[in-house]
Amino acid sequence: MSKQELVVLGQTDETGACCPGLLTAPLDEGQAVELAKVFKALGDPVRLRLLSIIASRAGGEVCVCDLTPAFDLSQPTISHHLKLLRQAGLIDCERRGTWVYYWLLPEMTDRLAGILTRPAGEPLPAPAEVTA
Amino acid sequence: MSKQELVVLGQTDETGACCPGLLTAPLDEGQAVELAKVFKALGDPVRLRLLSIIASRAGGEVCVCDLTPAFDLSQPTISHHLKLLRQAGLIDCERRGTWVYYWLLPEMTDRLAGILTRPAGEPLPAPAEVTA
Repeated sequence: MSKQELVVLGQTDETGACCPGLLTAPLDEGQAVELAKVFKALGDPVRLRLLSIIASRAGGEVCVCDLTPAFDLSQPTISHHLKLLRQAGLIDCERRGTWVYYWLLPEMTDRLAGILTRPAGEPLPAPAEVTA
Repeated sequence: MSKQELVVLGQTDETGACCPGLLTAPLDEGQAVELAKVFKALGDPVRLRLLSIIASRAGGEVCVCDLTPAFDLSQPTISHHLKLLRQAGLIDCERRGTWVYYWLLPEMTDRLAGILTRPAGEPLPAPAEVTA
């Protein structure tokens, strides 16, 4: 994933500090299209399980040969789901000999967490307050 | 949204503290199915823009009559997208006279942010370290 693609997700601060964009200001169309691709990649139970297995692996990476036994799905199907996670910038991989190894790209999950985090000191009204 | 549905997203602490589930341990199938529904609702540019307009509104709620002019879409299409956001537990609404008013349910975005946040003191390996 290029730096340009990452920037469009509301991150313009080169210090790495996150600039929440979803809850603080209306997204423009371009931002929404880019961000929707990432959420769409997360919008599938198999991909979420794959991501959680990869992200929680102590050694930081997982062989595809250790991923397929966790699912009642064919190897090509698992590979397709992994490809979508990779295209969304959530994971990356490297082939070594027979097998492909996958790892989390924490920059993207950090960015999504930042986008979904309410700005400090600006609590949103609770529904009860809104409807009172 | 029932309390039971919220609990399945990895939140079992009644104090409201968040228990990240996506990056720390493999999700089970039931958790993944519930969580995927919410991410799928976010996986569309129109729904993301609607959510950002609703979430960033200073007064805390938005009349549907103020949402439709921002899009080149019919009122029924906008209402359909709003329904999907509501079914995912991201927003709620109330009819008052002619119009329906929408507001963010920050509990759900807080929960997603928590699920996507890395546990403190446990940095994940950077790709460079993984492949070294």
